[in-house]
Amino acid sequence: MVPVRAAVLGATGLVGQQFVRLLDGHPWVRVEALVADRSAGKTLEESGRWVLGERPPAYAAGMVLERLDVDSLARRVDVVFSALPRSVAGEVEPELAKRGVVVVSNAGTMRMDPDVPLVNGEVNPGHLELVRVQRERRGWNGAIIKNPNCSTAVLTLFLKPLLDEYGLERVAVTTLQAMSGAGFSGLPSLAIYDNVIPYISREEEKIETESLKILGKLEGGSVKPADVSIEATATRVPVIDGHTEVVYFKLKRSPGSIDELASVLDGFKSLPQELGLPTAPEKPLIVRGEEDRPQPRLDRMAGRGMSVTVGRLDSAPGLGEGWYRAVILGHNTIRGAAGAALLAFELYYKTGVGGG
Amino acid sequence: MVPVRAAVLGATGLVGQQFVRLLDGHPWVRVEALVADRSAGKTLEESGRWVLGERPPAYAAGMVLERLDVDSLARRVDVVFSALPRSVAGEVEPELAKRGVVVVSNAGTMRMDPDVPLVNGEVNPGHLELVRVQRERRGWNGAIIKNPNCSTAVLTLFLKPLLDEYGLERVAVTTLQAMSGAGFSGLPSLAIYDNVIPYISREEEKIETESLKILGKLEGGSVKPADVSIEATATRVPVIDGHTEVVYFKLKRSPGSIDELASVLDGFKSLPQELGLPTAPEKPLIVRGEEDRPQPRLDRMAGRGMSVTVGRLDSAPGLGEGWYRAVILGHNTIRGAAGAALLAFELYYKTGVGGG
Amino acid sequence: MVPVRAAVLGATGLVGQQFVRLLDGHPWVRVEALVADRSAGKTLEESGRWVLGERPPAYAAGMVLERLDVDSLARRVDVVFSALPRSVAGEVEPELAKRGVVVVSNAGTMRMDPDVPLVNGEVNPGHLELVRVQRERRGWNGAIIKNPNCSTAVLTLFLKPLLDEYGLERVAVTTLQAMSGAGFSGLPSLAIYDNVIPYISREEEKIETESLKILGKLEGGSVKPADVSIEATATRVPVIDGHTEVVYFKLKRSPGSIDELASVLDGFKSLPQELGLPTAPEKPLIVRGEEDRPQPRLDRMAGRGMSVTVGRLDSAPGLGEGWYRAVILGHNTIRGAAGAALLAFELYYKTGVGGG
Amino acid sequence: MVPVRAAVLGATGLVGQQFVRLLDGHPWVRVEALVADRSAGKTLEESGRWVLGERPPAYAAGMVLERLDVDSLARRVDVVFSALPRSVAGEVEPELAKRGVVVVSNAGTMRMDPDVPLVNGEVNPGHLELVRVQRERRGWNGAIIKNPNCSTAVLTLFLKPLLDEYGLERVAVTTLQAMSGAGFSGLPSLAIYDNVIPYISREEEKIETESLKILGKLEGGSVKPADVSIEATATRVPVIDGHTEVVYFKLKRSPGSIDELASVLDGFKSLPQELGLPTAPEKPLIVRGEEDRPQPRLDRMAGRGMSVTVGRLDSAPGLGEGWYRAVILGHNTIRGAAGAALLAFELYYKTGVGGG
Repeated sequence: MVPVRAAVLGATGLVGQQFVRLLDGHPWVRVEALVADRSAGKTLEESGRWVLGERPPAYAAGMVLERLDVDSLARRVDVVFSALPRSVAGEVEPELAKRGVVVVSNAGTMRMDPDVPLVNGEVNPGHLELVRVQRERRGWNGAIIKNPNCSTAVLTLFLKPLLDEYGLERVAVTTLQAMSGAGFSGLPSLAIYDNVIPYISREEEKIETESLKILGKLEGGSVKPADVSIEATATRVPVIDGHTEVVYFKLKRSPGSIDELASVLDGFKSLPQELGLPTAPEKPLIVRGEEDRPQPRLDRMAGRGMSVTVGRLDSAPGLGEGWYRAVILGHNTIRGAAGAALLAFELYYKTGVGGG
Repeated sequence: MVPVRAAVLGATGLVGQQFVRLLDGHPWVRVEALVADRSAGKTLEESGRWVLGERPPAYAAGMVLERLDVDSLARRVDVVFSALPRSVAGEVEPELAKRGVVVVSNAGTMRMDPDVPLVNGEVNPGHLELVRVQRERRGWNGAIIKNPNCSTAVLTLFLKPLLDEYGLERVAVTTLQAMSGAGFSGLPSLAIYDNVIPYISREEEKIETESLKILGKLEGGSVKPADVSIEATATRVPVIDGHTEVVYFKLKRSPGSIDELASVLDGFKSLPQELGLPTAPEKPLIVRGEEDRPQPRLDRMAGRGMSVTVGRLDSAPGLGEGWYRAVILGHNTIRGAAGAALLAFELYYKTGVGGG
Repeated sequence: MVPVRAAVLGATGLVGQQFVRLLDGHPWVRVEALVADRSAGKTLEESGRWVLGERPPAYAAGMVLERLDVDSLARRVDVVFSALPRSVAGEVEPELAKRGVVVVSNAGTMRMDPDVPLVNGEVNPGHLELVRVQRERRGWNGAIIKNPNCSTAVLTLFLKPLLDEYGLERVAVTTLQAMSGAGFSGLPSLAIYDNVIPYISREEEKIETESLKILGKLEGGSVKPADVSIEATATRVPVIDGHTEVVYFKLKRSPGSIDELASVLDGFKSLPQELGLPTAPEKPLIVRGEEDRPQPRLDRMAGRGMSVTVGRLDSAPGLGEGWYRAVILGHNTIRGAAGAALLAFELYYKTGVGGG
Repeated sequence: MVPVRAAVLGATGLVGQQFVRLLDGHPWVRVEALVADRSAGKTLEESGRWVLGERPPAYAAGMVLERLDVDSLARRVDVVFSALPRSVAGEVEPELAKRGVVVVSNAGTMRMDPDVPLVNGEVNPGHLELVRVQRERRGWNGAIIKNPNCSTAVLTLFLKPLLDEYGLERVAVTTLQAMSGAGFSGLPSLAIYDNVIPYISREEEKIETESLKILGKLEGGSVKPADVSIEATATRVPVIDGHTEVVYFKLKRSPGSIDELASVLDGFKSLPQELGLPTAPEKPLIVRGEEDRPQPRLDRMAGRGMSVTVGRLDSAPGLGEGWYRAVILGHNTIRGAAGAALLAFELYYKTGVGGG
């Protein structure tokens, strides 16, 4: 089989490094280029920026980092995994798509564009159909596929089986987000050590809007947002990786019991599991009965970082009839970023969306 | 003026140390005894257990720690400030009250006893009237006065002006509690570093029940619990001091604007401020408009640890009509423990409840 | 091949858990029993004490934890890996050896006994010969083999090639030790967060005495301590795993250059590498040229936690002629405990010491 | 008395904020201007950059931050306290001195210039005489006075009485430096959390060179460096404030005992104490006998942040005859920066150096 030729854009950032790590030994993808403007000319190893452990994977350590050159890239790769900052992504990603490249991107831009699929693998694989609409409307052969904002990826994976099984009316979520969500240099140590910051720029808005698109239905070439009310408060806590979210949610129909609710969540499988995609976790949701779980340090790598762990599942009578509570946790730079993007690509590749 | 003679029980624990610190230079109270069984015989300084800074206050450093002896104490002091563990407090505190001592206690026992005032100074000073009922019913000359659980103290101070001004229907609170809430040795470093623990034993129940008593009305010698529904989820975060709480609340009547709501909170004063009590903060509630406040490291010492800082005040439309959101923060071992107890005592002393 | 039947003693502690993890899939060893008095009767998973990630390895999760019963154990296993606390180990380990069991132990007891091999795999594999002396002297068929104290294991691995190549006169080491060195519950979070504790009970003495035995020569059935002066200061820092050590050392003969010194260290191999033992790292020492390495979070898992990373290698002229400086780092519960013990066992097993 | 009119340069940085805090209520100094280019035009409070607690001191909160304008400043103030970054300080500070302003500066520039006093109040107050040389040589009426690098300030205060009493031959120091030493935004949280960084740019060189100047003798208008060999290794640890230093030192003459050594250190007083300067601590050095002190979180505010705490004092036989060991700790942005600068100014002002 001819491997898919790929590049990682923003390869020295935290999400870029997760792409590099997750693509190590990938059965279908071969990384041909690593793009990182600031360190261009050095190898990834020489750049001194690898922070996911001792050294970069062997395949990538000696690769020379490149400046971004859309023409050159378009000739050499089929797909790019983009961890570019917003400001750059907005311009570059469409230029690559125009040149026929499939852009799978973690950047916040274009996520809410009606013809751009915003895909969380197990939640809305069918939204990849939007690629056809996108190509037609934009007149390009490439594609832009987005993964959700980190806390949204974790939340919507949890909400999906609830929506399908019981209907979902309202959600009030408080996030306790890890420092890595701000990027390697985004958060000064003195700002967060022995501290909580009760605000993350644009995060609450992303949760409230992206979730509705992801949970929405694709009808007639566009996504009809889910009819759910979401209220979010985002905080930052001194944790390296792993976003914890305290979720209150109101169901339309009552589960027979909390045990039943737990079973529905714990048993949830979707297309990525059916297709046995390389990055798909065996269990998207892992329900734990211990009263003190999930915990970021223990549970963030569940399912190699792709599973969301659910705990403290109970009714929430203080909020009224039909309300429930859970604490959920997922790895923000894997399930919430690079892993979700890679899974979206695997779905795209395997299901042949767009006649690829 | 003859000073009130006092003892601190459990003087080497975190809350006990806060008592010792707060009583340094107190205008009415003179500390006569420090009780700490485990280190009895050593001076407080020699015990090596002082953790609130370099050394204990000069007045206390050389005091010899004593074993608990209720008879001896009852002869020597008028009031005890108790930071005893539950197991000991349940037995000892009533024995002291029987012997005529006023027991002002942070221990979790007896808080919900109908004749025991559970007092958060600015919220329910009038509940101290229960001391009369208590004396009559129990046949003792002393008294037992309790301060609330830490997160409840912070929460109810915030809720009080809302209840009075707008009526309060429901509250859903998620706490991000500091490590010191578990006591000095309660939480292993490896359990909480780079982690969140989404559970604190008995905490949610305390918040849900104590709040209703504190916000309740004293009628005919007993407290009628407030008619509010409270739902709580308690988590522990790697912060030394200062409990953060994300509060969603539904008001019965709409404030004219968020600014009005902020004014009502920021302008709140109560009896401790009117009486100018030594431990009363100038402002019980401090509303901050910056989007990234309150923060534990910056705001926990506001009002010398007795003020609660309020931020991120807004409507919460995702939860429906009448819902609002705030993030609040208070110092858990001052406002949430020793400071609240001391303030309760000052109210008792100054208002002459019980004909004292 | 008939597998070696093994038990892990103290299986729910941090070092015990590392034993359980490292023995997962071991080619020669099959774990038959997990001993943990406090949680006896529950499975390892039910005990709720697993802290090395999401869940215990599949092979161990369902094993029922046992109370310690030396007779029963002696019938069922060939070797025990002991992570028992000092107080218990002193009594139990000899009883097992009497009953024919090979005890490979991380407990601090008996390390300095003249007939007990204190083995750091690459440093003094030959000391295992002491097992013969031990059996003869103690009249038992089993054996007691000890691994060094954590910071000593890291230090001596670094010193060994220096001693062999250049001769070693003096060492002055300052350790910055991880919290896990105190066990899971040994260090309260409030004691170490935002703090350094400049003292670790008995640690400096262990470094100063154990090192000399490990670096010593086996002659005529006993170990002649190395003729090196060692000065140690041990501190605790807020790091989860990985002991950093700043080492000043005086060589007897001058290396031609710092590069030469680096090559000697980086190229060091020993018997475990020659034998290809399962737990032996490919490179015992990894010299890094970057000025900001080693770092615990990045480098502790080098060589699956069995390599020691060396950085900041330079002369130390301020200390005088012949002095050098390095900063070294190793994983304290792997190279410094369970991994070192397992490697010692593999050496014992493969080299047939004791006619096994 | 006419107050000294002062400005703080770099008023929104960590050291600048310490200047603002320490000058609150200063008996001789009145702050007339706060300079901070990035936030110019806003008040200090509005700048949102205050991180030393809830709010800036009342006197400074409403002051409007200014752009740096040397002419304007020179007309309005007598002295500037400079916390400017190196790059700016090198140019600006001489311009101010030319215009007659006394510049007391924490910036690293010019510290080793032969005619610039590098002053650590209790150690080398007499070096202020260099101001006369400086004025003559440079032809200006103002002055440039520098305080030492943070870890050097802590170290030299400790070494001074040893040098005077016993003579000092060699020093080998390993520092464990706080995050605040890198400035508020200098150190990403992900770089240092659960980590140690064994390198701080230029720090070791500063310790090795500045110390010799500070401990040197002023003779014939220039400083003769102390004849001591210093070897330094600098590391960064996850601590907010307070540099810990493990110091091995070789004395020329033996103290009679460790107790005597402790007394010499603990009893050390110098000119600032004799003059009763406002910022001088009662005790420059505090020797503690407990084996687990000093600790940054407990001891950094000793002497309002101006004392250095000394512990673990002992001989160091492993290093040879005449060697000793101590662990010392001081507040890096107070004793190691703003406090040291202010104390130097108070000495200058009170002793009338330069005929001021």
